[in-house]
Amino acid sequence: MAHSAQDDWLVSLRRELHRRPEPAWCEFYTTARIVEELRTLDVDEILVGPDLLAEGERQEVPDEKTLDSWLEQARETGVDDDVLDKLEGGYTGAIATLEGGDGPTVALRVDIDGLPQKEADEQGHQPAEEGFRSIHEGYMHACGHDAHATFGLGVLREFVDREFDGTLKVIFQPAEEVVGGARPIAKSGHLDDVDALLAVHIGLDFPTGEIVAGMEGFLAVSHFDARFTGTPAHAGGHPEQGANAVQAMATAVQNLYGIARHGDGATRVNAGEVAGGTASNIVPEDAYIHGEVRGETTELMEYMRDRAETVLRSAAEMHDCEVSVERGSEAPSATSDDRIVEEVVSVAERTDGVDSILRSGTLGGSEDATYLMGRVQEQGGDAAYVGIGTDHPGGHHTATFDVDERSLDIGVDVLSGAIERLLGAASE
Amino acid sequence: MAHSAQDDWLVSLRRELHRRPEPAWCEFYTTARIVEELRTLDVDEILVGPDLLAEGERQEVPDEKTLDSWLEQARETGVDDDVLDKLEGGYTGAIATLEGGDGPTVALRVDIDGLPQKEADEQGHQPAEEGFRSIHEGYMHACGHDAHATFGLGVLREFVDREFDGTLKVIFQPAEEVVGGARPIAKSGHLDDVDALLAVHIGLDFPTGEIVAGMEGFLAVSHFDARFTGTPAHAGGHPEQGANAVQAMATAVQNLYGIARHGDGATRVNAGEVAGGTASNIVPEDAYIHGEVRGETTELMEYMRDRAETVLRSAAEMHDCEVSVERGSEAPSATSDDRIVEEVVSVAERTDGVDSILRSGTLGGSEDATYLMGRVQEQGGDAAYVGIGTDHPGGHHTATFDVDERSLDIGVDVLSGAIERLLGAASE
Amino acid sequence: MAHSAQDDWLVSLRRELHRRPEPAWCEFYTTARIVEELRTLDVDEILVGPDLLAEGERQEVPDEKTLDSWLEQARETGVDDDVLDKLEGGYTGAIATLEGGDGPTVALRVDIDGLPQKEADEQGHQPAEEGFRSIHEGYMHACGHDAHATFGLGVLREFVDREFDGTLKVIFQPAEEVVGGARPIAKSGHLDDVDALLAVHIGLDFPTGEIVAGMEGFLAVSHFDARFTGTPAHAGGHPEQGANAVQAMATAVQNLYGIARHGDGATRVNAGEVAGGTASNIVPEDAYIHGEVRGETTELMEYMRDRAETVLRSAAEMHDCEVSVERGSEAPSATSDDRIVEEVVSVAERTDGVDSILRSGTLGGSEDATYLMGRVQEQGGDAAYVGIGTDHPGGHHTATFDVDERSLDIGVDVLSGAIERLLGAASE
Amino acid sequence: MAHSAQDDWLVSLRRELHRRPEPAWCEFYTTARIVEELRTLDVDEILVGPDLLAEGERQEVPDEKTLDSWLEQARETGVDDDVLDKLEGGYTGAIATLEGGDGPTVALRVDIDGLPQKEADEQGHQPAEEGFRSIHEGYMHACGHDAHATFGLGVLREFVDREFDGTLKVIFQPAEEVVGGARPIAKSGHLDDVDALLAVHIGLDFPTGEIVAGMEGFLAVSHFDARFTGTPAHAGGHPEQGANAVQAMATAVQNLYGIARHGDGATRVNAGEVAGGTASNIVPEDAYIHGEVRGETTELMEYMRDRAETVLRSAAEMHDCEVSVERGSEAPSATSDDRIVEEVVSVAERTDGVDSILRSGTLGGSEDATYLMGRVQEQGGDAAYVGIGTDHPGGHHTATFDVDERSLDIGVDVLSGAIERLLGAASE
Repeated sequence: MAHSAQDDWLVSLRRELHRRPEPAWCEFYTTARIVEELRTLDVDEILVGPDLLAEGERQEVPDEKTLDSWLEQARETGVDDDVLDKLEGGYTGAIATLEGGDGPTVALRVDIDGLPQKEADEQGHQPAEEGFRSIHEGYMHACGHDAHATFGLGVLREFVDREFDGTLKVIFQPAEEVVGGARPIAKSGHLDDVDALLAVHIGLDFPTGEIVAGMEGFLAVSHFDARFTGTPAHAGGHPEQGANAVQAMATAVQNLYGIARHGDGATRVNAGEVAGGTASNIVPEDAYIHGEVRGETTELMEYMRDRAETVLRSAAEMHDCEVSVERGSEAPSATSDDRIVEEVVSVAERTDGVDSILRSGTLGGSEDATYLMGRVQEQGGDAAYVGIGTDHPGGHHTATFDVDERSLDIGVDVLSGAIERLLGAASE
Repeated sequence: MAHSAQDDWLVSLRRELHRRPEPAWCEFYTTARIVEELRTLDVDEILVGPDLLAEGERQEVPDEKTLDSWLEQARETGVDDDVLDKLEGGYTGAIATLEGGDGPTVALRVDIDGLPQKEADEQGHQPAEEGFRSIHEGYMHACGHDAHATFGLGVLREFVDREFDGTLKVIFQPAEEVVGGARPIAKSGHLDDVDALLAVHIGLDFPTGEIVAGMEGFLAVSHFDARFTGTPAHAGGHPEQGANAVQAMATAVQNLYGIARHGDGATRVNAGEVAGGTASNIVPEDAYIHGEVRGETTELMEYMRDRAETVLRSAAEMHDCEVSVERGSEAPSATSDDRIVEEVVSVAERTDGVDSILRSGTLGGSEDATYLMGRVQEQGGDAAYVGIGTDHPGGHHTATFDVDERSLDIGVDVLSGAIERLLGAASE
Repeated sequence: MAHSAQDDWLVSLRRELHRRPEPAWCEFYTTARIVEELRTLDVDEILVGPDLLAEGERQEVPDEKTLDSWLEQARETGVDDDVLDKLEGGYTGAIATLEGGDGPTVALRVDIDGLPQKEADEQGHQPAEEGFRSIHEGYMHACGHDAHATFGLGVLREFVDREFDGTLKVIFQPAEEVVGGARPIAKSGHLDDVDALLAVHIGLDFPTGEIVAGMEGFLAVSHFDARFTGTPAHAGGHPEQGANAVQAMATAVQNLYGIARHGDGATRVNAGEVAGGTASNIVPEDAYIHGEVRGETTELMEYMRDRAETVLRSAAEMHDCEVSVERGSEAPSATSDDRIVEEVVSVAERTDGVDSILRSGTLGGSEDATYLMGRVQEQGGDAAYVGIGTDHPGGHHTATFDVDERSLDIGVDVLSGAIERLLGAASE
Repeated sequence: MAHSAQDDWLVSLRRELHRRPEPAWCEFYTTARIVEELRTLDVDEILVGPDLLAEGERQEVPDEKTLDSWLEQARETGVDDDVLDKLEGGYTGAIATLEGGDGPTVALRVDIDGLPQKEADEQGHQPAEEGFRSIHEGYMHACGHDAHATFGLGVLREFVDREFDGTLKVIFQPAEEVVGGARPIAKSGHLDDVDALLAVHIGLDFPTGEIVAGMEGFLAVSHFDARFTGTPAHAGGHPEQGANAVQAMATAVQNLYGIARHGDGATRVNAGEVAGGTASNIVPEDAYIHGEVRGETTELMEYMRDRAETVLRSAAEMHDCEVSVERGSEAPSATSDDRIVEEVVSVAERTDGVDSILRSGTLGGSEDATYLMGRVQEQGGDAAYVGIGTDHPGGHHTATFDVDERSLDIGVDVLSGAIERLLGAASE
């Protein structure tokens, strides 16, 4: 299928998705809209709903009320109700399969969720200027997953009318931002026949025209949810009768960020969402921290997790509060395999618009793609994580993040080229 | 009008109100239900709606959406829609007037709002056991204002069929818990003709049968709302690019509680409600503290307020954040006048069920009744704040707070008796 | 013995003592200098040395090296070596006794220690201007104990040549500032025959010419010494291998000051002296807090002490440190007996220079005189704590504290007058 | 000169130095003892005293009293008084020069100072068991500089009787632990003729028999000294009149450790030594933090330094205190040059006792050798930092640190071999 260098279809798809960012496990519209395109492309198989995700393995699923409210909004857009029905309860995401002849199975994984981040509404922020700013106030595609979903559809379009040996699977993964979607897909077994897996990310401070063939430096990550319970009291009459859950939480926050850096490598900690108390004149009875720790290796992550749990428990004790600490989703570290990296490099070398190729680069963040990569590698397959540079005005996860849409074409070309060679290569 | 010692009407009224606690400025059902009783009692005048509250003086009014949702709930109970219409926008509360002949004007002030406190649902908590536990989950009459409203109606019932000189006004004040309702009533001028004002509180650690004729030790109070704004960043990739509003908030909380105690008298501080951040993997951009400071005198409250503002500003600066600090509602300190205290003491001495009378007692909390008391005193009238003891199993503002319903009768008797003497006394 | 209104002897004595402030248990020069005067006055008995202080009851005695260095300095002043020998080991202080005929025993307690506070050296600070600023840099009579010692000698001078019934004891108490000297004297039994005890303090924000006949509002106090032990590590290479005692200490300090205020009355907390660590590149292994808590009642002090200990232990645990918390000296609260207060009032009414008399006043601080008062009261005697106003430019315990020397005369006159009446009164 | 594999001279020298650790700028005994050996070895030139160190460039020199006390202790050991005289004022360290014929100048830098760390005195700690534990209680060679000094002398012994072309300089550098000694030597010009510089460190978690030819990963470091000044007050009477310097310091400590980790590489922060306040009953007027920040690059160190300064200033402001922040010594990052690394590798390959050679390794700490390396590299020479593995039971800077003395021989052999080749190589 021929298409122009600055492909209108890709741009318009990406903008449509950008306008309706949905947070983890609430990608109802996004999934249904993707399915719509998959049907148009006439792929061989579309998997959606509970079968996609191993029973009991989804993590950080919002409460029913939240899920329903997003589902309701999705219904109002007019996307296919039958698809939405299958997604009910937060069973979002999809796997699309194209069958060629005998040959290896190659998979591409893209993630599709947005973030609870308010989008900028100012001069110079292209989505605002050109009318595709998020219509879900307080939510935003601030990490480029709109572009990722577009990559997935763009790659499929390249292969639908083409002859090839083997099988191509594109995984539209939900809930990456809460490190929650990859694990239930990995455990579902849908990847166990995969010989080569490509995961992809746009941006990451690499400019438009730059390709990172095999990203390294994934930080292992672990989420936690700490809930402090104290004793309420009248803040004026008898503050001493209270056990102040907000004081416990604040002490914990201060000391979480103060956990000692580690000589063996990078660590991270974030008290990303906190709250407590109900009224200015009541000593707060409840408070929580929804946070995360990371480490350059799984061991470093565990060091942080152990220290964080000590901090949380001691902070509660200090203020006569109880605390429950629940571990949320986790993702391991991962490495990219040379076999795939080589293919990406050679394809990138002859791709229009690519002017710089890095064999490896450092992610410096976490990604639950590492679950999928690890699963494929355990089964004897190879995996790599590819970076597609893009000039982004604001940092990832900030209000002014945006992608340079020239990267959409480049990404589709590099990924399709590498997949073509892997289908061929593996069949040799 | 005759009634039994354990007056069924009072108990049943109190329980009805207890079941439907409404927070400050949302007392739609409560006000309409009170008006219903006032009409039955056939009082001379009922004032509700915007005229009750001086323009622009209400503080800490919730947003429209919250107001609407409470109004909606009130409508569903079947109370008079015409009354509710007048309250729209949070113009809650009422003043009921009974006109006798020539004579002094005596006023009784009762407050009617509930608290954002979850009510206990356990063995031994009478409202749960006897079926009048709050049906508004997360809200509760945890400070006895259900009993206060009942006092107001009970006192009016005592006078409706009685001949007396002078005028009796009962003020059903909204929004005491946010220290927000007294000031707009004071500024409305509806109290400017009042010769004697009684305010009343149940409980306060005084047992059933004990009366405090003139409460002292009101803490002046000032609310504040601090909003921290930082810079979001990817918590894994580039935490250093963020300016962490939650870290600023936590530093502020720790240091607010650490403001030096004052040698001249009691002070208080509470970070009663806090929140910040949106997701575990984003360095939090926003956070807030809704808090309060108090002091035994207005000067001591101002010392706390000034120190608190320094803490808030420095904590923001420390973490490269901005902070806006808005002062919310404030209430001054107050004293009870001897003339009224004497009357309360002599009435209490001959009231059934009273077995202990304190001339004065210490509130140790704050109360915006002080605004009304101050206004009356400025105009040359007298005021006193009366405590009606009750055995309460849990502390004020806690989940197991409850009142001993034997206090309802006692309170009505003492207040009615004192009012009768003040009507007479002032007319001498 | 006649003397002028502005008594040169008192002024010069006070200045001599002011120049050589000595901290708790190091009052070697001060004691010896006082003994010198007592010998000149020819009192009947002078008690110094270990007999004065009940075995094992002295608290917060400095280490031997510190004691020796102060003793050495004292020796260099030329005071009597034999006296100094008796004080060796920190057995400072003295009791002087004058025997009249049969009659009651009346005691006056004055304290004599200085503070580890650098004295101001600036224009307007009288001791600096007139050449009697502290020559012990870093130490200062910043609480007026130089004047107290002078009161003690001044009162004795009034009685040495006078006939009277009964016995007069003046107790020159060491180590008040560490709340350490009164208890061993109380336990020594030397007060068990006392019928009336007067303790005295100058200043306390009362102006020259004002007398407080019976001070109230003593805060009960308890000292603590918390020692944190962690694990050192190279701060650059392997900070994670350390357990950071300074971080534990800082967390504790923040949360100590944040202990909830108490609805029942005044509380205090102070982390008065802290230290930790040895070098910028070592994760600190050790840290300590030498602090105190106070309460308006002994119960309130105990509330603070318990909460403080929880904070200290949790802060250690949070940072994988050990902590030992030793309770130091304590002092209870106390009250002044009416019998003595009356006598002070009537004497003050006819004393030159007194222009304002308060029956009672609030100390708002702590005092180990309460131990002595309690001991006397337990044995059936009476006690009172008298305030002698003085205009002091700086606050107590600050660099610019000073006394108005006109207060020396006034104090001696009021105290002597009251003692005279008590000697007489008790003998009636 | 022949010597046994386990060279008695080296072992006994190292133990002698180990017994008398001296902190930065106080290496009086150590320097004089080294000079004694240099004279025995009969080197061509020995430079000691002020000429060694560029005027005004020494940093973190202790106060005169401390210097004098260490000098005094050194005198008591009987080392040469004339040498000690030259070192007075803390002009410690030495450069020894051996002149061969024409040829390149090769330098070896060893550091000689100890640490303020108490040495273990327990079973299993070899220095304690074999009688060469530190006799300076509270100070210890806890980083192996005793072995470094021994390396320097051992290498010189290899060359004194040997013919070679070029010049060999051994720099016995003082004050490495405070990052203070390299800079004044670099600025003195004594290295400006050096063609190749070797610096060396023992241990660093590399085992005995392992050689790291070119260490990388030096953290740039910057020391700071923050002094908080508040207002004292009586902690019982009027705590609100104080401005609490200890509270400011504790807030700063908590937030220093909480400075956000950086996505670009390793950072460090340590509040290594803190203190404040004078007595438990005075609100602390003064406090200080002697700390440091580090970064994997100079930019990262500067990020930490800027953030730290913001934290320090805001913490002071929050508590109405003043703060002065003085930057102390700093050291940049550095890299090892391939030319030298190659020589070290080839020598190590044929050295007895070496069983593992790493071309590079990560220091993960800071080192002011980087100043010397940078200076040589700026002048066109090459530099490398060599690691000599040793089994050390405790971590660097801890009480149980020790070296495996088999490493002494290995270190001398590898260093001498590499120096020999560099003398030869450069002359080609």
